[in-house]
Amino acid sequence: MNARYDVIGIGNAIVDVLSHSDDDFLKRQKMPKGSMSLIDEPRAEAIYNAMGPVVECSGGSAANTIVGVAMLGGKAAFIGKVKEDELGETFARDIRASGVAFSTPMATDGPATARSFILVTPDGQRTMNTYLGAAQNLTPADISEDDVAASSVLYLEGYLWDPKEAKEAFVKAAKIAHGAKRTVALTLSDAFCVDRYRKEFLQLIRDKTVDLIFANETELKSLYESSDFDSAVSALRQDAKVAVVTRSEEGAMVVTGDSTETVPAFPVERVVDSTGAGDLFAAGFLYGFSRGHAACRSLRLGALCAAEIISHIGARPERNLRDLAKENGLL
Amino acid sequence: MNARYDVIGIGNAIVDVLSHSDDDFLKRQKMPKGSMSLIDEPRAEAIYNAMGPVVECSGGSAANTIVGVAMLGGKAAFIGKVKEDELGETFARDIRASGVAFSTPMATDGPATARSFILVTPDGQRTMNTYLGAAQNLTPADISEDDVAASSVLYLEGYLWDPKEAKEAFVKAAKIAHGAKRTVALTLSDAFCVDRYRKEFLQLIRDKTVDLIFANETELKSLYESSDFDSAVSALRQDAKVAVVTRSEEGAMVVTGDSTETVPAFPVERVVDSTGAGDLFAAGFLYGFSRGHAACRSLRLGALCAAEIISHIGARPERNLRDLAKENGLL
Repeated sequence: MNARYDVIGIGNAIVDVLSHSDDDFLKRQKMPKGSMSLIDEPRAEAIYNAMGPVVECSGGSAANTIVGVAMLGGKAAFIGKVKEDELGETFARDIRASGVAFSTPMATDGPATARSFILVTPDGQRTMNTYLGAAQNLTPADISEDDVAASSVLYLEGYLWDPKEAKEAFVKAAKIAHGAKRTVALTLSDAFCVDRYRKEFLQLIRDKTVDLIFANETELKSLYESSDFDSAVSALRQDAKVAVVTRSEEGAMVVTGDSTETVPAFPVERVVDSTGAGDLFAAGFLYGFSRGHAACRSLRLGALCAAEIISHIGARPERNLRDLAKENGLL
Repeated sequence: MNARYDVIGIGNAIVDVLSHSDDDFLKRQKMPKGSMSLIDEPRAEAIYNAMGPVVECSGGSAANTIVGVAMLGGKAAFIGKVKEDELGETFARDIRASGVAFSTPMATDGPATARSFILVTPDGQRTMNTYLGAAQNLTPADISEDDVAASSVLYLEGYLWDPKEAKEAFVKAAKIAHGAKRTVALTLSDAFCVDRYRKEFLQLIRDKTVDLIFANETELKSLYESSDFDSAVSALRQDAKVAVVTRSEEGAMVVTGDSTETVPAFPVERVVDSTGAGDLFAAGFLYGFSRGHAACRSLRLGALCAAEIISHIGARPERNLRDLAKENGLL
């Protein structure tokens, strides 16, 4: 069957609140640098009051990826839960303005739209503190069977394992996708997230609920509780059909049972803010993958999109990714 | 008397809503490129619905300048009106988090906090559409006599001439400052703004209500209705005690009755977004001026701060300006 969408993503619908900070601030606030921590409302308020001047823009891991796919020229859709409040309207407007189909009904009561307080240190690293709010209330009923079945790739974020019912939504969507002979992709999201759900993630990979895995080096090491990168890659090669492993400035690779392809990182002037690096890498790769491009070219597209996003504040692209890809001979 | 503040600014308190756009969008929306247009609520809604994905951050011309002064290490205060709503809280929190004293009471009813919809074209130019909202309700009662008298420099934006009562607040503050033997500075803000209030601005300069003028090339030409830069500079030299004239990539100059100092623009990799270029130039110059630095060094500080702000989206600095100034041997 022809696909209506190249990629449909399901994830936590979040607005990012970003601020520059120094390492001392992270220490004082006891924030593990580079991680994503879940926080409650009082903690959210305390962090907001303590942090410096902010920039607000739409975020959410899978949402960032899907926006990237659309900006590259892909047909893309997103499923995620916001509340009908100011931030919720912002999120919905932004994702649609990026050319993404988004029709998940907004919550009319319950907690506010999710926000992530992101501290960006001078080395460009980002440390995230996420109040899940309305995103927690994504349920299986929000999964559009029709849309998922009509998408070449279903893309899921590991963070979906945090909100209780989202997990069921995840599993429902994966079943629909496989029923329609589509590819199911999962990003491991964060090393701490892997630590929380290691057994379940391994199960999803091993029983082929997911076909395509995205992981960075620390997530991969966390998954296999190994400090040795090569042995973790070998283990992943055994377990996953296809896996994309990103290694920041050391480039990225795609591994299958019997093949490995690697590409170097795309050079950047200065890493301003690493927020969204993995998300946009996935966007570039998924665009290429869903259009049947060679693995190597898809990896290069991923590296290019990641380079764009780390060159400025925020996890939504500032430059026209399609033009950028054309300038670099990748489209 | 010793000064409690190096600079106190009075201006429209605005939150910026920025988006990338192409020239066609400006044409379709009939927006004069590079200008600031005042808009009403229905137009604000129409623009918001039509524009692409946005980034939100605090703005306001004089407010941006004052934040820059504080980030350079100056003691700074700001007077401006927001409403007690979500954007108002954001504005107040951000300016305080930047180290600026801000105690203007928030409006509890009336129009919402001001916002400016800013379209950034691929050439880095910004085109602004401002809904003044609560900012219009700044009145002489909001001027803290004590704070103004205790500031070395009072800095006013020409945009204050748009909201009706703010003009009176402006005049009141200038009187207080001169009564305390302080310097009164004014930025002409925008060529269209100059066009609206040419006679009044010339009067303010000629009767020495203001001592220090900031203008860019187009504002200066508009002020004297001249297409010749040199003759406009000569006219300004006659009228103003001290004037700072900025010319984008052609650098900047300070002119007095008998002297001229010029500096080149500070080189930048790529102009991403010119929003705030003039505001941050003023910040650097005012910091130096209020601390008694030589004109040439103050100009260089201005050029450096302007270069920082045009290298990224938004009109509030991302890098620590004080560190940047030290790295460049200016502090």
